[in-house]
Amino acid sequence: MFDDFKLNGDKAYYLQVKDYIKELILKGIIKSHTRLPSTRELSKIIGVSRNTVIEAYNYLEDEGFIYQKKAKGYYVSSIENKDKTAIKIDWKSKLTDEAILSDRLDITKHEAKWERGMISFKSISPDPKLFDLDEFKRAFLNRISLEEGKILNYGYAIGYRPLIEEIKSYLKLKGIDLKGKDVIITNGYTEALNLVLSAILNEGEEIVCENPTHNTAINIMRLKGAKLIAVDVEDGGININMLDRKIKQSNSKCIYLTPSYHNPTGVVFSPENRLKILEIAKKYNVPIIEDGFNEELRYHSSHILPLAALDGGNSIIYISSFSKVLFPGIRIGWILADKELINYIESLKRNLNIHTSFLDQALLYEYLSGGNLEKYINKVKRIYRDKFEWAIKCAKKYIPHKKILGEGGLHLFIELNNISSRKVLDECLKQGVIFTPGDVFYIDNKGNNTLRLGISRVTNEEIEKGFKIIGDVVKKLEGLK
Amino acid sequence: MFDDFKLNGDKAYYLQVKDYIKELILKGIIKSHTRLPSTRELSKIIGVSRNTVIEAYNYLEDEGFIYQKKAKGYYVSSIENKDKTAIKIDWKSKLTDEAILSDRLDITKHEAKWERGMISFKSISPDPKLFDLDEFKRAFLNRISLEEGKILNYGYAIGYRPLIEEIKSYLKLKGIDLKGKDVIITNGYTEALNLVLSAILNEGEEIVCENPTHNTAINIMRLKGAKLIAVDVEDGGININMLDRKIKQSNSKCIYLTPSYHNPTGVVFSPENRLKILEIAKKYNVPIIEDGFNEELRYHSSHILPLAALDGGNSIIYISSFSKVLFPGIRIGWILADKELINYIESLKRNLNIHTSFLDQALLYEYLSGGNLEKYINKVKRIYRDKFEWAIKCAKKYIPHKKILGEGGLHLFIELNNISSRKVLDECLKQGVIFTPGDVFYIDNKGNNTLRLGISRVTNEEIEKGFKIIGDVVKKLEGLK
Repeated sequence: MFDDFKLNGDKAYYLQVKDYIKELILKGIIKSHTRLPSTRELSKIIGVSRNTVIEAYNYLEDEGFIYQKKAKGYYVSSIENKDKTAIKIDWKSKLTDEAILSDRLDITKHEAKWERGMISFKSISPDPKLFDLDEFKRAFLNRISLEEGKILNYGYAIGYRPLIEEIKSYLKLKGIDLKGKDVIITNGYTEALNLVLSAILNEGEEIVCENPTHNTAINIMRLKGAKLIAVDVEDGGININMLDRKIKQSNSKCIYLTPSYHNPTGVVFSPENRLKILEIAKKYNVPIIEDGFNEELRYHSSHILPLAALDGGNSIIYISSFSKVLFPGIRIGWILADKELINYIESLKRNLNIHTSFLDQALLYEYLSGGNLEKYINKVKRIYRDKFEWAIKCAKKYIPHKKILGEGGLHLFIELNNISSRKVLDECLKQGVIFTPGDVFYIDNKGNNTLRLGISRVTNEEIEKGFKIIGDVVKKLEGLK
Repeated sequence: MFDDFKLNGDKAYYLQVKDYIKELILKGIIKSHTRLPSTRELSKIIGVSRNTVIEAYNYLEDEGFIYQKKAKGYYVSSIENKDKTAIKIDWKSKLTDEAILSDRLDITKHEAKWERGMISFKSISPDPKLFDLDEFKRAFLNRISLEEGKILNYGYAIGYRPLIEEIKSYLKLKGIDLKGKDVIITNGYTEALNLVLSAILNEGEEIVCENPTHNTAINIMRLKGAKLIAVDVEDGGININMLDRKIKQSNSKCIYLTPSYHNPTGVVFSPENRLKILEIAKKYNVPIIEDGFNEELRYHSSHILPLAALDGGNSIIYISSFSKVLFPGIRIGWILADKELINYIESLKRNLNIHTSFLDQALLYEYLSGGNLEKYINKVKRIYRDKFEWAIKCAKKYIPHKKILGEGGLHLFIELNNISSRKVLDECLKQGVIFTPGDVFYIDNKGNNTLRLGISRVTNEEIEKGFKIIGDVVKKLEGLK
């Protein structure tokens, strides 16, 4: 006994001794009510100081694993034998439909995975090497010295007040009138959409949305039991006639749109298109969930107001985050909507996870309040724009296509000449190139000839090399037809 | 024009000039296609350097608010008039039943609120003044210099791998056999319970649970559509005969229990009680959701193994967090369960909010891995224990009662002699004392004569003063009967 004890450098020695003895007790190697070696004896056996053993015994006593008998030393408490029961549950038979569907729709699990050495065009997350860590550290140290332990204790479901005010100012400068509206902080855009649908969508109700659209949004809507009604996206925006017709024919609870920088096509809805959308929404009195996706990374066009700025009423639920430019790992997003609606969403949020990390909210606030976001966007916009233009050039040069879509952001969307992008992917994987087949963005099994190419985390050389491989595969498959 | 511009100290001057002009454009005060003053002119008018104005104009051009004409200067882009449409939605008529119920059950909204100057026994959150901020800062600086921007970028739904391993070691030292099991990180205990129920509970199914129990758990179960079946909690654990009978009579999907430190009564389930619970679970093959609430803050009894350590099978879903001792504001909890079940919960989690903040997970990992948790618990246990013993003494002395429950933790639970605790609360509020009436923890309108008194964030003097006020009110009401 005690002869396999080994110290390592990571943890205080007395904690290591404590954990070691605890394991012997839990495994039943030291039996209940047996006497432990004296602190002097054990210190010799395992080669640590006697004080270390004393400390370890103190902790073990505090945790109830051993007890003292006066003048007799330490004894092991009675710990139940854990093998008395073994209950076997068939978990598969217990699953809800939601769990099964959620697993089935989970493309992270089921799509081809990146492996070391591959050129990956799957990611559209920002390049972490561009983050301004010094400013972030400064933000941390400032906030924590100002707020102290408070910022690590429970906060409020609605969010960290200074961050809410900062986001409100930010939205005001997008032209949004905040009268009668409120903002709640969420764990990113994803939770925001979940909360909004929990508040207004009953199972089986219809949502009109773009086709294709954001895969995460499709999954969330489907898991909430929505019936999705598809409207085509074209150059310049959504097909207005189709939008009108589909809303007229359906009984849609709301419209879900990503007008600022449509994912996956990269189309920016024109001002005219936006106004027409609002006319239709007014005609049928249907609210709109506006996804502010990537509004910050538009490269060319003149400023375009979000729908939330164009409607003087209360019909727009605007959800967004900075996750495509800044710190997606801390998972902070928000919902701007009618005050009354936010009041209900606040209770749903409290019930779901009490609130979003107050530490992260405080850090983001401190970072934003110094004007760092603007400086940062100014910096990365130039870098991403150069990369985007290079990617467009390479795509045109190497990949035979029907259409290349995208007006900025961190990816392009390509329509091939009736070649299956999944067949292209199969071939490309063998040659170390991976991308997202476009069909995952469609709600009606279309888009088999499309693919999305994320470029934020690859070099210009990788873009050229990877696109050439994709292009060669496409040419080969075109030749086979 | 431009005469109401004022600089303030917080933000870079060029950003302030930029935002100022942006607002004038958005409000329509400067019309589309009008010429802006030259940089030289504006610098004189508003009293900033010309370089500041040049920078501001550059940003405005980048954001698409203004454009340049060669040799003619800067002009305002055409921005749509935002008053064209005003869509009015009657949000109340759009709400789901879930949203309405969630608002109705939200005790944070509807119960009496703390006001400055009151003695509050509502909170059972840890005292933030006890947090070890220096260690936390060190953890931040260490992790960020090791992980750099990576830790601020997207991570994985299952959680931050080093934290998962750390929690697994921690659970092993509670005697839990991890074979065939896995851990997923969640946004606190609250999200953990939500995820578990999403995975296994269909609307209308039955859950057997303690009565009273944690109010948050009641709300979550009700909002998921559970039918709750109440089993009484007594000294030493749950009423075993009643548990057997209720499970036999029902068709319960699972049992929800808080055996380690029952909230609100503070009862610690005895080893015998735990083994009997497992016998019943085995007899009816019903899984158990075990809430590890406050396991860390038991003051007296010898070590008691959690149910998850006593079942050698796969029937226990163990959910917990450190939020009652450490950093609840960062909202980190976890689920330990059968691997197969966790695989489904992972997809549900990804769909809900992609993952829990990777920054916070990394900070917690770094903090834990140094052995800080044990040192911290060791420190606060003594402080909280002293306070708890003082509170028990004061309660016995001042408050006429039928029963005082609680074996540790951060609160006591009191049963009065048929006096309505809400009537007591009404009177106490007038005298500046607030607490939680116990009925919110009951699922069958019982508990009208009970109250929970949280003591973590009040001083010993406040405890004595506050309990005396409560006691005097109780005496007065007893006299009136």
